[in-house]
Amino acid sequence: LLRRKDRERSRRFLAEGPQAVREAIGAAAVEVLLVDEATRERHVDLIEAALARGIEVGAARSGELADLTETVTPQGVLAVCRFPEVSESAVWAQRPRLVVACADVRDPGNAGTVLRCADAFGADAVLLSRASVDPYNPKAVRASVGSVFHLPVITGLDLGALTSAARGAGLQVLAADGAGEAELPELERSGSLSRPALWLFGNEAWGLSPDVAALADVRVRVPLYGAAESLNLAAAAAVCLYATATAQQEAAPRTAKPVAPGDGRYLD
Amino acid sequence: LLRRKDRERSRRFLAEGPQAVREAIGAAAVEVLLVDEATRERHVDLIEAALARGIEVGAARSGELADLTETVTPQGVLAVCRFPEVSESAVWAQRPRLVVACADVRDPGNAGTVLRCADAFGADAVLLSRASVDPYNPKAVRASVGSVFHLPVITGLDLGALTSAARGAGLQVLAADGAGEAELPELERSGSLSRPALWLFGNEAWGLSPDVAALADVRVRVPLYGAAESLNLAAAAAVCLYATATAQQEAAPRTAKPVAPGDGRYLD
Repeated sequence: LLRRKDRERSRRFLAEGPQAVREAIGAAAVEVLLVDEATRERHVDLIEAALARGIEVGAARSGELADLTETVTPQGVLAVCRFPEVSESAVWAQRPRLVVACADVRDPGNAGTVLRCADAFGADAVLLSRASVDPYNPKAVRASVGSVFHLPVITGLDLGALTSAARGAGLQVLAADGAGEAELPELERSGSLSRPALWLFGNEAWGLSPDVAALADVRVRVPLYGAAESLNLAAAAAVCLYATATAQQEAAPRTAKPVAPGDGRYLD
Repeated sequence: LLRRKDRERSRRFLAEGPQAVREAIGAAAVEVLLVDEATRERHVDLIEAALARGIEVGAARSGELADLTETVTPQGVLAVCRFPEVSESAVWAQRPRLVVACADVRDPGNAGTVLRCADAFGADAVLLSRASVDPYNPKAVRASVGSVFHLPVITGLDLGALTSAARGAGLQVLAADGAGEAELPELERSGSLSRPALWLFGNEAWGLSPDVAALADVRVRVPLYGAAESLNLAAAAAVCLYATATAQQEAAPRTAKPVAPGDGRYLD
């Protein structure tokens, strides 16, 4: 499961360490829990939570977990998790108000961090284009700090089709673009940021390609007041999603998201 | 210069790759420029810019640059740079309106990214506590993407003394704290975010310690609308600095920062 091909064929991925494993169990995503014999006593709560849900628990000899992962210190617990079984059409059917689409994110750490930001600001789903990195890559799962289990994550999508579907579901399509024609604070002041939105984010090095930027209703730049030429991807995503989620929340507070973790997205 | 001790003793650090080297030359920070013989032709513009400023240019044999750096691919150019000679008191004397202080940042990549965000949102200086990582670490310099040359960066500071000095210079002291008593959008709406501010950011794993949080006038939380328990350091910094810089800019636009690059901070 260290290779994308193997993850996609088996529709399984790995979660490492107590925090990610706890989130995975909570999301009913775990198939098998492996615990290092030497650190078993530290993870009694996780073992009990897994057994209570009928999850198979296996003991691994010291060093075996490290062989199964890419991590030097796998923290004693490892879960084999199922891919969430959620479709893009199910996302649009729920009338989401904040959806994130990654056009070309290539670094797994960045993908995980964008996922974490999307989750933090209450996004209803994260969609990834075909050219993007695998969000179930172990580095991406680690960088997401559990968020990969909190909201629907769908991969391998066509950006043209998904922007059309977003419009059909009543969302405006915004693209984060350093050369965009609109400035984020302007949209905030005009009130348009409180409308349901799909945000498009581009590649960490070269941003959005012109054809992807053209799919958006508005290309939006984060104002830069200093000498830096750009923000890194995760920082730009954090700022755009914070501004949008806050504007939406002020216009119409909501407490529960339409698609919540553990509501059947994971088919047991 | 790969070790902090050696950088601090010699007050020199390394900038790698054409972009960082160009910024370093622009900031009059370069003492010696080293160019890989094999890629010399690609860097003629940098060599000319360096020679025009009286900077010593040396040729390195293929592979020599890689030995001098930690990078696998050092991109053919390397500059030995001087530490900026700027004092904390000079920063306060300029009546800054946005200053960033890192209380305990430990990862060089995070330090560089915070520096880049601070620069992007027009911060007047970045101050680091004694317990923080060295911002002149090669990984931090790379992650800052040139920003280390754009604004004063001062290390080894005492947080108690610097918060007092900030108040003396008319700045409010805000601390980013997931358990803070004020919410960022509230401060925006109340108008208080447009006042001059020093922002305190804590450690990437455990945030601000209670004694550092107590140094602030207000502890501010970024609202989280989803299931993620926290944001990563750079995302939190990006959001806080965006909100503050935008509020300040709307209240009183400014075009030039009081301490600009190349204005004598680097003593030739």
